Amino acid sequence: MAMTPVSHQPLITPRPVPAELLAVLAERLGARLSTAWAVREHHGRDESPFDVPPPDAVLFCESTEEVAFAVAQAARWKVPVIPYGAGSSLEGHLLAVQGGLSLDLSRMNTVLQLNAEDQTVRVQPGVLRSQLNQTVKDAGLFFPIDPGADASIGGMTATRASGTNAVRYGTMRENVLALTVVTASGEVIHTGTRARKSSAGYDLTRLMVGSEGTLGVITEITLKLHPLPESVAAAICSFDDVASAVNTTIAIIQMGVPIARCELLDSNAVRAVNLNDKLGLKESPMLLMEFHGSPASVQEQTETVQALAHEHGGQAFEWATTPEARTRLWRARHHAYLSALQTKPGCRAVTTDTCVPISRLAEAVTVAEDEARAAGLPYFIVGHVGDGNFHIAYLIDPARPEERELAERLNEGVVRRAIAMQGTCTGEHGIGLHKQGFLLEEAGAGGVAMMRAIKQALDPDNILNPGKIFQRPAV
Amino acid sequence: MAMTPVSHQPLITPRPVPAELLAVLAERLGARLSTAWAVREHHGRDESPFDVPPPDAVLFCESTEEVAFAVAQAARWKVPVIPYGAGSSLEGHLLAVQGGLSLDLSRMNTVLQLNAEDQTVRVQPGVLRSQLNQTVKDAGLFFPIDPGADASIGGMTATRASGTNAVRYGTMRENVLALTVVTASGEVIHTGTRARKSSAGYDLTRLMVGSEGTLGVITEITLKLHPLPESVAAAICSFDDVASAVNTTIAIIQMGVPIARCELLDSNAVRAVNLNDKLGLKESPMLLMEFHGSPASVQEQTETVQALAHEHGGQAFEWATTPEARTRLWRARHHAYLSALQTKPGCRAVTTDTCVPISRLAEAVTVAEDEARAAGLPYFIVGHVGDGNFHIAYLIDPARPEERELAERLNEGVVRRAIAMQGTCTGEHGIGLHKQGFLLEEAGAGGVAMMRAIKQALDPDNILNPGKIFQRPAV
Repeated sequence: MAMTPVSHQPLITPRPVPAELLAVLAERLGARLSTAWAVREHHGRDESPFDVPPPDAVLFCESTEEVAFAVAQAARWKVPVIPYGAGSSLEGHLLAVQGGLSLDLSRMNTVLQLNAEDQTVRVQPGVLRSQLNQTVKDAGLFFPIDPGADASIGGMTATRASGTNAVRYGTMRENVLALTVVTASGEVIHTGTRARKSSAGYDLTRLMVGSEGTLGVITEITLKLHPLPESVAAAICSFDDVASAVNTTIAIIQMGVPIARCELLDSNAVRAVNLNDKLGLKESPMLLMEFHGSPASVQEQTETVQALAHEHGGQAFEWATTPEARTRLWRARHHAYLSALQTKPGCRAVTTDTCVPISRLAEAVTVAEDEARAAGLPYFIVGHVGDGNFHIAYLIDPARPEERELAERLNEGVVRRAIAMQGTCTGEHGIGLHKQGFLLEEAGAGGVAMMRAIKQALDPDNILNPGKIFQRPAV
Repeated sequence: MAMTPVSHQPLITPRPVPAELLAVLAERLGARLSTAWAVREHHGRDESPFDVPPPDAVLFCESTEEVAFAVAQAARWKVPVIPYGAGSSLEGHLLAVQGGLSLDLSRMNTVLQLNAEDQTVRVQPGVLRSQLNQTVKDAGLFFPIDPGADASIGGMTATRASGTNAVRYGTMRENVLALTVVTASGEVIHTGTRARKSSAGYDLTRLMVGSEGTLGVITEITLKLHPLPESVAAAICSFDDVASAVNTTIAIIQMGVPIARCELLDSNAVRAVNLNDKLGLKESPMLLMEFHGSPASVQEQTETVQALAHEHGGQAFEWATTPEARTRLWRARHHAYLSALQTKPGCRAVTTDTCVPISRLAEAVTVAEDEARAAGLPYFIVGHVGDGNFHIAYLIDPARPEERELAERLNEGVVRRAIAMQGTCTGEHGIGLHKQGFLLEEAGAGGVAMMRAIKQALDPDNILNPGKIFQRPAV
């Protein structure tokens, strides 16, 4: 099947927001309804490369009841509502392509209920992941999902986020137990329970996780937590080329080593973090790894991994033994994206997010690298390679459309190969505005038709974050 | 809210099966379409206590294309289709409450593609779990999900099954990567990919897992496999009472010990397996445990668990060190249900399946035990207690309706408490015919309305296993 052409600029079709609606909302929310340009503009931007007019108004909601009220009112006038968390989307999830209301949930940032003995926690959607970990660490627990940004738990749930720990602890898919959701008509429903497993009817929790705000507004999330490991060790290991680093990773996974983090940085990414974080790392492809467990288990894991790295030409491990040294390394990893942007002033990044079966990873990464090098655009590669997920980011000058086109063509090649390898166009960033054509290629017309049928059933007037994942179904 | 009354006998509303439909199917399937009474009768029974007339015909399908053909034809006449795997449902999933066609998928029993290096396998739905493990073990891999019966992978997917290993390896929810599904109109769609994670649109895979045949007929399943552990140790430990065994389990989970299996048998269950399997076990409450990992890790786990058991009055571990001894113990555990049935000739079992947050498990189990004892019905308790999931089975004489009523009242009490504890009415058996009232209580009217809306959107003529999970929506 031919690759569906990708539209690089979203379709913008604003719908009117009646003054009566704003009046009703203002009556309930007072100054927490804003139509000030600066506020709207702030809520109309994310980390994606799209230019879209801002939403017509922003509501700073403070409770599930307020969200339900706002959605019920918007539903009366068929006006779009777009949930807003920390604004860190890379795929345009929060852009108001059909106008409407931005529901800012950042003030709903309370950790509602920690059940330490069950290792569960219930939070509001505006809680940030750093805040959550700060709150639960005194109970000896942590929440492992860590996208690079300090994202909100609501946004992470809505995009099925993952990050560096997913290789061991899973993604939001595995770590969300239950949700409170405001439906398209403004009703409040609850999905899931605090039990670890259930066979009670359709898995509405998993349907909402990753639905990008298009099926409901998530207002409470119950999460699994994990015990803080007794022992933690982090290490870096340099390789002659990206292929050797990736082949080491493949061997680690195939051996069943329960590695907690296994991150690739290519030499460009290492150079960027060196510049930004003054780390003085050797500027060659590198694995950044972390091991969790009892002291004996960590010891065993590291011995196995060192032997595997050695077989693939890896240099001796450098250990980050203190918590401070580990934090410094991981901060650098999480800053890699922003650090790399600084190497080309004024640039933006077009970032791929494919995830492939682990046995195909070396081929996927090295072909992407070769093509980027041949194309002559600056790029860098980082990857959650233990999952088969990597990002190659092309740095483009937004004033030069030909760079944008070139980056998009390279991205299409990466995606096309991932799908041919029985992988996915997006491991963790979501579809948003950018990957709608890729979704059609990956899931097929029948799969997307089923998604559209669900959307139509749960949101018949298409008011919940319209224009994302797919365009409005032709009825 | 008051508990919704439970209907103990399903609503039976047969729909006509036109002769033209049978003629079209016979033309394509030949002798693999059967209307013989014995065949229909065999496909109209499972392990549930319901008496329902058998389906009107049975189709032995041999390919996705045949299933698609059969469903498309059934759709023309709006005739129900009910997927049939191994017939081991406990909740009436395969009963033809509205008549129609039983699609027997047991001949679709080929392991299609093993990707050992990715630890994935693609199978047809009729593959049995024992067969799958036999096939993949030479590659050093295993599939951990093990409901007591030798169920089919298709049926296990459709009911979101789990079993004894779920505490470490998760359930079907975590271990299904991708599906091929025949929709209500007879189209073939594909969900998911072989990548370990994805954020590509709605999670149709998870929506189909646990949908009990009501949203599509599953014709291929791609599963995660796991490396056979380097070292395995199994042990039993006896306790004075059920509470002590459960409290030991709670401590094991809260410590974060990666125990692979942690099963409770009460003294009645031990007595039954002793009678049946001649094991000579001490007839008191018992934990049956298994540890997987490297030798050092297994050593460490067992030391921790022995210390915890000792604190709760557990007697010294008895080890099953040889594979034969382990197999014998686990076979006995898997036979517990049938062994117990044999202690009261001619009886049937009414089985609960609640799952609660682990901190509430001791209370949930001991209250259930006290009530059963006070009621005077024979019962036994087994439990995947590491997950917070336990089964109390009441042995009733089907000829005495008052025993049935008493068992159902006890069951209602167990479920009511589980839901109050933020748990679920079914950890692994599914809703089927039996727990529709409980689902309403657990998920709420809004949650069930959302499930019905999805059903209506994907199966507007209600031909896919109608009458299961919920009655047909009022339109």
